Amino acid sequence: MAKKQKTFRPKARVPRGFRDRLGAELTAEREMLSRISAVYESYGFDPLETPAFEFTDALGKFLPDVDRPNAGVFSLQDDDDQWMSLRYDLTAPLARFVAENYDSLPKPFRRYQVGPVWRNEKPGPGRFRQFTQCDADSVGAPAPDADVEICAMFADAMEAAGIARGDYVVKLNDRRLLAGLLETAGLVGLEPDDELQRVTVLRALDKLDRLGEAGVRLLLGPGRKDESGDFTDGAKLKDAQIDRVMTFINATQATNAETCDRLAGFFSTSAQGEAGVTALDTMAAQLGALGYGEDRIQIDLSIIRGLDYYTGPVFEADLMFTTEDEKGRPMRLGSVGGGGRYDGLVKRFKGIEVPAVGVSVGVSRLLEALEAKKTTGDSVSGPVVVLALEKNQMAAYQQMAAELRAAGVRAEVYLGGSNFAKQLKYADKRAAPIAVIQGSDERDKGEVTIKDLVLGAELSKNIQDNKEWREGQPAQFSVKQSELVAAVKKVLARRG
Amino acid sequence: MAKKQKTFRPKARVPRGFRDRLGAELTAEREMLSRISAVYESYGFDPLETPAFEFTDALGKFLPDVDRPNAGVFSLQDDDDQWMSLRYDLTAPLARFVAENYDSLPKPFRRYQVGPVWRNEKPGPGRFRQFTQCDADSVGAPAPDADVEICAMFADAMEAAGIARGDYVVKLNDRRLLAGLLETAGLVGLEPDDELQRVTVLRALDKLDRLGEAGVRLLLGPGRKDESGDFTDGAKLKDAQIDRVMTFINATQATNAETCDRLAGFFSTSAQGEAGVTALDTMAAQLGALGYGEDRIQIDLSIIRGLDYYTGPVFEADLMFTTEDEKGRPMRLGSVGGGGRYDGLVKRFKGIEVPAVGVSVGVSRLLEALEAKKTTGDSVSGPVVVLALEKNQMAAYQQMAAELRAAGVRAEVYLGGSNFAKQLKYADKRAAPIAVIQGSDERDKGEVTIKDLVLGAELSKNIQDNKEWREGQPAQFSVKQSELVAAVKKVLARRG
Repeated sequence: MAKKQKTFRPKARVPRGFRDRLGAELTAEREMLSRISAVYESYGFDPLETPAFEFTDALGKFLPDVDRPNAGVFSLQDDDDQWMSLRYDLTAPLARFVAENYDSLPKPFRRYQVGPVWRNEKPGPGRFRQFTQCDADSVGAPAPDADVEICAMFADAMEAAGIARGDYVVKLNDRRLLAGLLETAGLVGLEPDDELQRVTVLRALDKLDRLGEAGVRLLLGPGRKDESGDFTDGAKLKDAQIDRVMTFINATQATNAETCDRLAGFFSTSAQGEAGVTALDTMAAQLGALGYGEDRIQIDLSIIRGLDYYTGPVFEADLMFTTEDEKGRPMRLGSVGGGGRYDGLVKRFKGIEVPAVGVSVGVSRLLEALEAKKTTGDSVSGPVVVLALEKNQMAAYQQMAAELRAAGVRAEVYLGGSNFAKQLKYADKRAAPIAVIQGSDERDKGEVTIKDLVLGAELSKNIQDNKEWREGQPAQFSVKQSELVAAVKKVLARRG
Repeated sequence: MAKKQKTFRPKARVPRGFRDRLGAELTAEREMLSRISAVYESYGFDPLETPAFEFTDALGKFLPDVDRPNAGVFSLQDDDDQWMSLRYDLTAPLARFVAENYDSLPKPFRRYQVGPVWRNEKPGPGRFRQFTQCDADSVGAPAPDADVEICAMFADAMEAAGIARGDYVVKLNDRRLLAGLLETAGLVGLEPDDELQRVTVLRALDKLDRLGEAGVRLLLGPGRKDESGDFTDGAKLKDAQIDRVMTFINATQATNAETCDRLAGFFSTSAQGEAGVTALDTMAAQLGALGYGEDRIQIDLSIIRGLDYYTGPVFEADLMFTTEDEKGRPMRLGSVGGGGRYDGLVKRFKGIEVPAVGVSVGVSRLLEALEAKKTTGDSVSGPVVVLALEKNQMAAYQQMAAELRAAGVRAEVYLGGSNFAKQLKYADKRAAPIAVIQGSDERDKGEVTIKDLVLGAELSKNIQDNKEWREGQPAQFSVKQSELVAAVKKVLARRG
């Protein structure tokens, strides 16, 4: 009495926090990353590909006294019970790679890497658990030369990606200034409360963009209640200390030389602060000599770049134009990447300090910015579609598509039924700029019809009645078959 | 009495079965995939990126009555206890994507995807647990038009990748011929033993390349003992049946028309067989009309492409040249990819048959082939290295590198100590073709020295003594600094 078993049908869905990407968005990202990669290669950086998995201990993702990996990473146990995790950034794999191959690598070692990283975090709007990173690092390279190089390269990369000069500025600061500031504001020396206070100060300054000066002052002092009513505890600085911190942050001048002048003497009692000023001064001079003036790389004393990790110069690329949010309000895109100098790269593995300086492009932000800067719409991103009206003429249609391709035009033949309306609907769904049509009438005359689908769509918006539409049809014309390629190219040129 | 704790230092190593890739190999693969992608796009295929993770049930990787995923995939449980696995190919994610977006996709739907896949298998020499796949599929496209298109596109992709016409042939067969063959050889109709026998026959034929006709005959008959003494059970066909199978396999002729002629009547009692012959006949005619003759796409009745999955035409690209193995023996590289028509793409999800035809490039094999075909060595793949002899001239060195880059020459400044020998050693390790040298002497004269490191290395092999070497130095010359770019380009041109 076998009961008829229901076939199991899994639901087709992408796991939570992940996404599919198709067509134009992907092409645009690949084009952008390829241009940036070309700049990195021209500077002598070699591409590196590390595997998706690293041993969890190599990523530093075990908590003390816990035998399971820390949250935040996707982890599993290999056959031999060793924990492996998917990389959550490209720096940890670089550290492992450099430590593993330390003796055989040329030093300094310049590499760049582009690829997905994974975060086992709660997804949200625009927050995915897999995304692309694009990093370049110089390992074992001395300051300030490597820092100068990577700042210049970053500016070049922005321009290669399509952000015009004037639309971005690489803003430069030095962590040692911040350290010196805290030192001279009387905030260091008292272990261990101090470190917490230091972090609270940095975290407050990092929010200048979003909260403005008044908000930052609250966070440096007693604390701040946000719009939702949540209270964030402050750094409990005294007013005079807050004044000094804000004086520093606001000391940025229009030219790098003026900013360095303004800082002279500011850190007279802090060796770290002095070292930071000297570094910025030298870098600005070298960059200027190379033609990277304030229009491209400018000292900005409000740049923080997160909480720890960096030990010398830090920088980020800020976009100088606004775009519109989904409600049409002006919106600043802000930082599209940055980096700095850090010393601890391979220390966890080898116990030695190997200094490095690196830059990471904010891939999705930069892509958004490029999208926003586009003056022409890209709704017509699809291929030319050659309709297939007569099934026995398939080879002829394929031949037309082949001719178009040979001339550099993306083209495809409709493959399906012979229904005309359905084929045009398909061309529309493909965002095709042009449909190429040859029915038996055209074929008898040795002609093809070129239908400009973009112009057609524009015209049809303004057409009063069907009669006028049918009589006009200015978006459609016939040419000799031998003129197919030239006619298609001419119509495509209308779109620029 | 705190005991001094030893700092934990993880060992820097890549997990078993995974690997790092650096520099030239990666650049070559990227270049190859980008050329192939451009061909796919020109045919109207859109790029698709699916995430690394899929739900395990969507991949079909649960065994019946087992609540853990099947071996072969890397799996873990999400927060909500659902099992996710890393994709093991690009077809299963395509199936999920098409099923999930079925109504909104244009049909037919053409997409290509390039990316890593993961296999949780025992690694071996040349067998990695992460590798790159490159697939193109037409979903919902009718035969034979979509099959013709994808075969032509595959041939175009081979040539775009750098395999010259004549160095490859896309070999074409049809699964229905094999089905018809088994039918007319009296091998189908008896459930369920039959299916096993059918698979055993296909598996035997799939080994023709490796075992030759005699080995295949054993596997079709009683079975075969291999060199290690292991016995593989045979399909137990009678001699007359084996003869018929081998007659079929060997019926391939020089021209597609002749092969189709030869098959006329061969399957008179099998509708499947007849359908297969008609399909090949039509495809060959259409391909011929498009200019894809037997030099590019040839019917080959010995092509099997694995055991199941395919339901119509199958094809693979075979390389026609030999290369050398590590011991210098001639070696055929064989197939560098292939594909075919299959019907079950979204059946698991939607219960309907959506036919598809796809092709998958054998990325690492094709890369090996391109490497083997290279006539010139690529040992000089590194950037031009500008030596940095005087620390206070760093901006000038950076300027030289910038000039070279602006002229399209990959260039970097040495960043490190000022030791001359060490810098040359670095240039050597970087596989630099040229070192650009400007010490104070050259600087005073407004000159730079161009050192051709490739010619230098060649000459030094033939130099008798150091004196001759020092006096000759033909691989090194000085030019006016304004002629730097031209001189470097001239030396690079020597290498082609």
